[in-house]
Amino acid sequence: MEKQSPKEKVVTLGNSIIDTIEEGNNPFIQLPVRGSSNVIWDQELGLLSLGDKMSKRYFINVAHAKKFMQTTLVSAFIKKLQNEGVHASLRESYYSLKHSIGKTKENTFEGQSESDAVFVDLEVAINTLRDELHINADRRGVAAGNVSIMDRGDEINWSKLGSGGWAIPGNVEEIKFNDIDADFVLVVEKNATFDRLHEDKFWKKHNCVLIGTQGQAARGIRRLIHQINAQFKLPVYVFTDSDPYGWYIYSVIKIGSMNLAHASKKLGTPAARFLGLTISDIDKYELHNAIIKAKDVDLKRARELLKYPWFQHKAWETEIKMMLKRKIKAEQEALAQRNLKFVSEVYLPEKIENREFLP
Amino acid sequence: MEKQSPKEKVVTLGNSIIDTIEEGNNPFIQLPVRGSSNVIWDQELGLLSLGDKMSKRYFINVAHAKKFMQTTLVSAFIKKLQNEGVHASLRESYYSLKHSIGKTKENTFEGQSESDAVFVDLEVAINTLRDELHINADRRGVAAGNVSIMDRGDEINWSKLGSGGWAIPGNVEEIKFNDIDADFVLVVEKNATFDRLHEDKFWKKHNCVLIGTQGQAARGIRRLIHQINAQFKLPVYVFTDSDPYGWYIYSVIKIGSMNLAHASKKLGTPAARFLGLTISDIDKYELHNAIIKAKDVDLKRARELLKYPWFQHKAWETEIKMMLKRKIKAEQEALAQRNLKFVSEVYLPEKIENREFLP
Repeated sequence: MEKQSPKEKVVTLGNSIIDTIEEGNNPFIQLPVRGSSNVIWDQELGLLSLGDKMSKRYFINVAHAKKFMQTTLVSAFIKKLQNEGVHASLRESYYSLKHSIGKTKENTFEGQSESDAVFVDLEVAINTLRDELHINADRRGVAAGNVSIMDRGDEINWSKLGSGGWAIPGNVEEIKFNDIDADFVLVVEKNATFDRLHEDKFWKKHNCVLIGTQGQAARGIRRLIHQINAQFKLPVYVFTDSDPYGWYIYSVIKIGSMNLAHASKKLGTPAARFLGLTISDIDKYELHNAIIKAKDVDLKRARELLKYPWFQHKAWETEIKMMLKRKIKAEQEALAQRNLKFVSEVYLPEKIENREFLP
Repeated sequence: MEKQSPKEKVVTLGNSIIDTIEEGNNPFIQLPVRGSSNVIWDQELGLLSLGDKMSKRYFINVAHAKKFMQTTLVSAFIKKLQNEGVHASLRESYYSLKHSIGKTKENTFEGQSESDAVFVDLEVAINTLRDELHINADRRGVAAGNVSIMDRGDEINWSKLGSGGWAIPGNVEEIKFNDIDADFVLVVEKNATFDRLHEDKFWKKHNCVLIGTQGQAARGIRRLIHQINAQFKLPVYVFTDSDPYGWYIYSVIKIGSMNLAHASKKLGTPAARFLGLTISDIDKYELHNAIIKAKDVDLKRARELLKYPWFQHKAWETEIKMMLKRKIKAEQEALAQRNLKFVSEVYLPEKIENREFLP
């Protein structure tokens, strides 16, 4: 099935249902179990992924019938999007699909959470990213650097977009990279850090691609980082706040997330390395007047990180335990305490030169 | 003072303090009162603005001394930014400015809320946008259309940026418009709506500039809309969800906000018109299966809107009261219930053709 187009895969699914009906049997859709019971940490790939537990969703089964109906509705909707060359958000899709059935007062979907879940089911059932099925994630993020891409017939050069930069769309499946002239990708959490590095011409001086995630990296950003790393073999360095939330942003970019474990192979970038901010950086770069007292929720989250197998490296354990002991955290902007350009002229060049990364 | 550059204004302020000291008097900074007691609704301009209550902040006054010190620190920091041609976020500025005083344990600023307030004080005192003083607001928003701008030496054409679009920066003061070929500006609240209209080539077919605010419009977006309207006399139509939150987004773009009343003349666009979604649209476009039950917080907010003088138009009162009576609201994406392209092919063209706007 791997070599079929997304549209062919949906059609194949539909045909298999029709065949089963015509054979006089109870039609079903087979899909991997998505719950946490079937999410595994694949140490070899360095990714979260789904295990091999499968489930079948039958039409003639009181407990399955509604979900079966919803899955076929969603499949038909996907096929229509593909035929028309149109994309839709999950929310638009929900409104498009919601209607009462026949003359009953029964609705196809009672809320967006119902339709969202079925879109993910389909994504998993036919092993195809929803993005490829023309379902757009919410957009966030911005990019700059010596990168030339083709997108909807436009040739776009990320190095010529002024202070603004290129707005990363929610769906990057149809973007083609013409050329990248860069030695690495630097991913930063905060808008202010992106703006600082962009104004200081960091990507020009250090020949890199600069990507701002504006918090947790949206799906489009993760896919873009994955593609640049896969296609151009560029190292990826992630720079976040020194707190469990920032470290988790790194972790999601690198190894994927529980919710989207089925998509990690296409969204994750196991080669990504953590550049900072670390708790050790606070001492090394004398940021003591810029530290913030960690809240209980930070400490709780830090203890959770310690349990994740992919944080079980000595360097990470040292950092996280230091945070728990000293009950402190710090933001990327804390480096401005030294001076505004300290981050672009001292901190980042030193870290990269000395290859001071966490795994 | 109006014809001085931002830097000259800061220097003038500093010199006046020095002069007062040299005359043997108690130095002070005079600034308009910013609290709600001094915010007025200027019906003629169609903007919220500051009244004429003034206050003086003295150095030799136990209640004022710390704030006076903070104001001069911030002024010196601003002058440094101007001299170096560098910009900073409020957060970076806070970290830059925070330090202990002499050998005491007293800090210049105890938290960012203290420094933020002083930046606004300075903005008001010298009647200059903080953006012009090189202080960047957080960035958000995206733009597309037949617009050519110059920004940091790059010539950027908003019509050639693929599915992504141009990421609107937090500070747009140094952007120059080369040319705009458009009949109006369409501002939309949701990313999904921006993506829908962008994919459907709405801005090309209807010759407009398309701006996505991604929720409440950030400062850079409001300033950009203001400038396009002021410079090119283009009508501005705002399209949000049909709920008090969406209507308030419109109101802030149009008349400004209480917090930034001092900046309304440079951030507001009184000529903006509200295109939709209205509660009436739900009936007219048969969106009944896509309505959402209003929550108590929505109803409370709607009652507040009714009290604002700038919502006291018959058309608005009818809409808000209808919402309160029926206890419903609807999202922009509700139009997808008719079909995905209904918003771009029917709803918006009809509304604009018939000039069905709310004031």
